Amino acid sequence: MRFVTYRYSEMVSLGLLAEDGATLSPLVLPVPLHEAGVRAVIEAGPGARLETTGERLRLVDVDVLAPIPRPRRNVFCIGKNYREHVMEFARSGYDAALSEDIPETPIVFSKLPSTVIAPGLAIRHDPRVTQNLDYEAELAVIIGTGGRDLPVERALDHVWGYTTLNDVTARDVQKIHKQWLLGKSQDTFCPMGPVAVTREHVDLANTRVRCWVNGELRQDGNTNMMIFDVPTLIATISRGITLEPGDIIATGTPAGVGVGFKPPRFLKGGDRIRIEIDGLGVLENDIAEVAA
Amino acid sequence: MRFVTYRYSEMVSLGLLAEDGATLSPLVLPVPLHEAGVRAVIEAGPGARLETTGERLRLVDVDVLAPIPRPRRNVFCIGKNYREHVMEFARSGYDAALSEDIPETPIVFSKLPSTVIAPGLAIRHDPRVTQNLDYEAELAVIIGTGGRDLPVERALDHVWGYTTLNDVTARDVQKIHKQWLLGKSQDTFCPMGPVAVTREHVDLANTRVRCWVNGELRQDGNTNMMIFDVPTLIATISRGITLEPGDIIATGTPAGVGVGFKPPRFLKGGDRIRIEIDGLGVLENDIAEVAA
Repeated sequence: MRFVTYRYSEMVSLGLLAEDGATLSPLVLPVPLHEAGVRAVIEAGPGARLETTGERLRLVDVDVLAPIPRPRRNVFCIGKNYREHVMEFARSGYDAALSEDIPETPIVFSKLPSTVIAPGLAIRHDPRVTQNLDYEAELAVIIGTGGRDLPVERALDHVWGYTTLNDVTARDVQKIHKQWLLGKSQDTFCPMGPVAVTREHVDLANTRVRCWVNGELRQDGNTNMMIFDVPTLIATISRGITLEPGDIIATGTPAGVGVGFKPPRFLKGGDRIRIEIDGLGVLENDIAEVAA
Repeated sequence: MRFVTYRYSEMVSLGLLAEDGATLSPLVLPVPLHEAGVRAVIEAGPGARLETTGERLRLVDVDVLAPIPRPRRNVFCIGKNYREHVMEFARSGYDAALSEDIPETPIVFSKLPSTVIAPGLAIRHDPRVTQNLDYEAELAVIIGTGGRDLPVERALDHVWGYTTLNDVTARDVQKIHKQWLLGKSQDTFCPMGPVAVTREHVDLANTRVRCWVNGELRQDGNTNMMIFDVPTLIATISRGITLEPGDIIATGTPAGVGVGFKPPRFLKGGDRIRIEIDGLGVLENDIAEVAA
């Protein structure tokens, strides 16, 4: 199933996307949905029956929101999880570690829940804060059933589904603070959506992750190139840490980010970033430069 | 004013601590308070009138909870913010950066909201996950009025108050993952409380931060020894990031943590950690070792 969180007549709601990809069937859900998005379905449990209102809405007539507009805690993110990206990041000089070594264990950091924005909304670029704005196309895992110390072999049972995420990054801020939270958590730095799909829709062994800037293909990776696969990421994070329904794990970005070019190609006002992951639609956001 | 979040007759509530430090006056508040704690007062705004029920409860008769039992996003934490602690951490070999340099900008990372536990509750030590469990006594700032790009000179206006926090850390996990999220976010790794005081109760120019393990004084710092003071921390975090009412910022730990000793003195089952910050009472938690 493919879900869309949307606003229509000033109400936030959740709908099932039809096969045509252009219309949706609103779901009957306990109000208030508000900041929950697909968490409303996730928390109802896998056995819950989904009832639609019988209406049909055209996607173009609603405001599509992020699948989970306000996560209940920071988004988990994985750093340096694609080989070629490890190399480009090391060579850029922006990695405080300056290492081309493949990480021995996953590098896990977070983005604030307040960074999440809808498809189509502007990514805020404040040149007083960063001169090195960059994009990162990523497949994001949405946790269904929570738990601690999840074994690798059963980790995928805890996945509810997937969505698309842009792990927008201020490279200079990321570098000077050593820990990445601030460089990753600027307001609007986490575009997400437009759909959230249940897990059977994504083949982790072969799903393309692509990103264009102003129509130019910059990233063209595949989930089968991850250094640490999704089960390993879930098992790693859940060691001693209880994962919760609705938790989001951004699985890292393939090569081709702006900082990887010589000279770097950072984002500027008016740039359009388009991310497409097989089966997950298109996530598109423009850069809006804040007047100094 | 000094607030205590507590559970009594299976209800979570909020009370004003009396001058005697032993009794509290329950506040009349809109239900459900649930996970909000003092956020209920903070979000009511500085002008809101606080009404008490007229009852009196003895502190020993209630279950004291963390002032904000479930923050709405990860707790902001500052690394290496006391000079002697920078040295001891570098010398320990557990800092991936291996640097004795004083940070040029604050190092900011986070702890999951689910790590927060009440005074008196056990800190979980799973020897399968970590062999290097450590304590960090810290003054925590609670944000009152939110905002972005807050100037240093007005930053303290945005502080609602303060509480005590133990930034429990798995040093080995912190080290191997490079980014600190996992090593800092194990379940139960953020004891907090017992009181939250409004800002006039804490003199940042002279407040002692002490920590004992099994009665032995290990940390004895003062907030006037911070490398980056509280206004600078708030200004730094809020650059491009909207701070929200109820956000928590742990301001870093003074020298004397377990990893700073030669050989290191890590925590083990049965150890009792007692933290005392002037005017903020005593935060005490024991280590409970999980059976393998």
